[in-house]
Amino acid sequence: MPDTISFARGAPSLDIVDVEGLKASAIEAFDADAARMTAYGTSVGYVPLREWIAEHHGVAPEQVLVTNGSMQADAFLFDSLVHAGDTVITERPTYDRTLLVLRGRDADVRMVELEPDGIDVAALERVLAAGARPKLAHIIPNFQNPAGYTLSLAKREALIELARAYGFVIFEDDPYVTLRFSGQALPTMLSMAPDVTVYASSFSKTVCPGVRTGYLVGPAELIAKIARLATSTYVSPNMVAEGIVNRFCRSGRLEASIAKIRDALRERSQALCAALAEHLPDARFVAPEGGYFLWVDLPQGTDVNALFDAAAARGVQFVKGSDFVLEGSESSLRLAYSGVTPAQIEEGVRRLAEAYAEIGAATPA
Amino acid sequence: MPDTISFARGAPSLDIVDVEGLKASAIEAFDADAARMTAYGTSVGYVPLREWIAEHHGVAPEQVLVTNGSMQADAFLFDSLVHAGDTVITERPTYDRTLLVLRGRDADVRMVELEPDGIDVAALERVLAAGARPKLAHIIPNFQNPAGYTLSLAKREALIELARAYGFVIFEDDPYVTLRFSGQALPTMLSMAPDVTVYASSFSKTVCPGVRTGYLVGPAELIAKIARLATSTYVSPNMVAEGIVNRFCRSGRLEASIAKIRDALRERSQALCAALAEHLPDARFVAPEGGYFLWVDLPQGTDVNALFDAAAARGVQFVKGSDFVLEGSESSLRLAYSGVTPAQIEEGVRRLAEAYAEIGAATPA
Repeated sequence: MPDTISFARGAPSLDIVDVEGLKASAIEAFDADAARMTAYGTSVGYVPLREWIAEHHGVAPEQVLVTNGSMQADAFLFDSLVHAGDTVITERPTYDRTLLVLRGRDADVRMVELEPDGIDVAALERVLAAGARPKLAHIIPNFQNPAGYTLSLAKREALIELARAYGFVIFEDDPYVTLRFSGQALPTMLSMAPDVTVYASSFSKTVCPGVRTGYLVGPAELIAKIARLATSTYVSPNMVAEGIVNRFCRSGRLEASIAKIRDALRERSQALCAALAEHLPDARFVAPEGGYFLWVDLPQGTDVNALFDAAAARGVQFVKGSDFVLEGSESSLRLAYSGVTPAQIEEGVRRLAEAYAEIGAATPA
Repeated sequence: MPDTISFARGAPSLDIVDVEGLKASAIEAFDADAARMTAYGTSVGYVPLREWIAEHHGVAPEQVLVTNGSMQADAFLFDSLVHAGDTVITERPTYDRTLLVLRGRDADVRMVELEPDGIDVAALERVLAAGARPKLAHIIPNFQNPAGYTLSLAKREALIELARAYGFVIFEDDPYVTLRFSGQALPTMLSMAPDVTVYASSFSKTVCPGVRTGYLVGPAELIAKIARLATSTYVSPNMVAEGIVNRFCRSGRLEASIAKIRDALRERSQALCAALAEHLPDARFVAPEGGYFLWVDLPQGTDVNALFDAAAARGVQFVKGSDFVLEGSESSLRLAYSGVTPAQIEEGVRRLAEAYAEIGAATPA
């Protein structure tokens, strides 16, 4: 089998991670603040990093909780707000782990179709008008995982109106926001409507996943409640890693890292779009404006399970579209272009096209 | 108010933490294995550290799960084995956070008296004979928190017999084991009876708390189940911190750190025992053979709530005995000697004795 080319995982390749900057940040952090780096600290996180995040978002430090990755932040938020049987709105498709976690809690998950400009707010309004009373709506506004789509400003405003009218929380899950490589940056819903928004983000996509550092921003009272839950779960999150991330942020390395990763993502996404246009003309997709992912719809009837196996036999990995929904999306797939070079992308799509040819022409709808 | 002297927290003081060794370990770890340090990894933990722990305990790597501190390991184990209403045995007194977590899960907590040679196994046998059917027994075998007592070999054997006869799991919670400064080391129950034991430990007490790295050792099937739970909670634990700990362990620095911390603990515990004998002759205690803590019983009727306030007014902090039990222990307290120098200990006990004198002589039973 040829070398593996993985479009499966949304992680940066090692060549765009600033390893030297992480080492320097580690040394500086231990030199500057060994006492707090080595101690337990408290569940709100390493205090200087909490303060940096608060400044970055223009909120009070009491509104920020730093966690062991943003999945852990999600888990705490769901522990606090979502009980068995509670209705939760998600986009369709959405991040597979979030979907699994919500289903694992026996939440009543209502997926609302995701369009290229974000969740179909008219469809959401119909769901609400028909009686659904969600506790929260989970929204990935920028360069969504898995679709790569971005929520428009008009839809952000409409969503906020619905949240206020129907009394639900917008859970704005925003790890990709700084990785925009084209188009216009949009305001966070946190900044537009802090009264109805809880915001989560992460350093996994801008520094590296191994630092496992994410955070929540929300009303101080809710954050204090979640901090108590965090105390009884793990005393405090990782002080050593958060100390390193803090130095990385405050030394200017974060900005440089974001620029480097963003430039690579631009190049990789362009390579992927070009390769798909050339080798797999049946693929329908929207070129992303940032982030890690591109969603491909193949002609209805295409057996993506068979494509998955045929691609794997050629050393190419992707995630099936059906993993991101409760049912359907059987002729779609997610391609992550973050961990592969342009040359690998070209070669990977070439092999994917061979696999597609092998499984036979789909029956168009 | 004079400078604060805290006997409250079980953490090493900064002067006995090997900060330079942590810095060197960070550089070496990034140089040797940047790819795995910076990536997500998987929920079992940073693979080389998992392997080091497995070798250390003479088990297969599949029996080890590395977690974000050992409280998180406890939480996963309880998630897997303890449901609302399930009976759990704990020592009386026991670690306050464990008690809170178990009560938070609505477990039926049955505390069994802790004696200077460990849990009263005859009393436990009576509880079992009377019909209790615990899912697990939480035991801190060495230099117990809060009492500082150690479970004898004979009682380890008796406990294992009871676990086998009544079908419960011994949860051997053992973060202090390597910090023995007098007496004879005893085998772990994990090594004596792997069929009925799940083992947890941590690097918080031997490296520093800020690394937030703990682990579980148990049957491979249970560990695999908990690993799935960990995946859906946080994807993976902290790779950067675990990579640093791995280098710290494999470079010989861990042994040196343990020796340094152990020597300091010996000196501090001796200073504490001597100061109590001199300044507070009413205090009854057993000199610990290792670890971080010493338990003080004052004459029955002593109002430790009042002592707490009178000591605080003199800048001295401790934890009330009543925090470590469901009810009672109102004339006892826990003194942690790990974070204070011998000079601070002498001064702290002198002030504590003043506070004791101020609240008035207790009425002996």
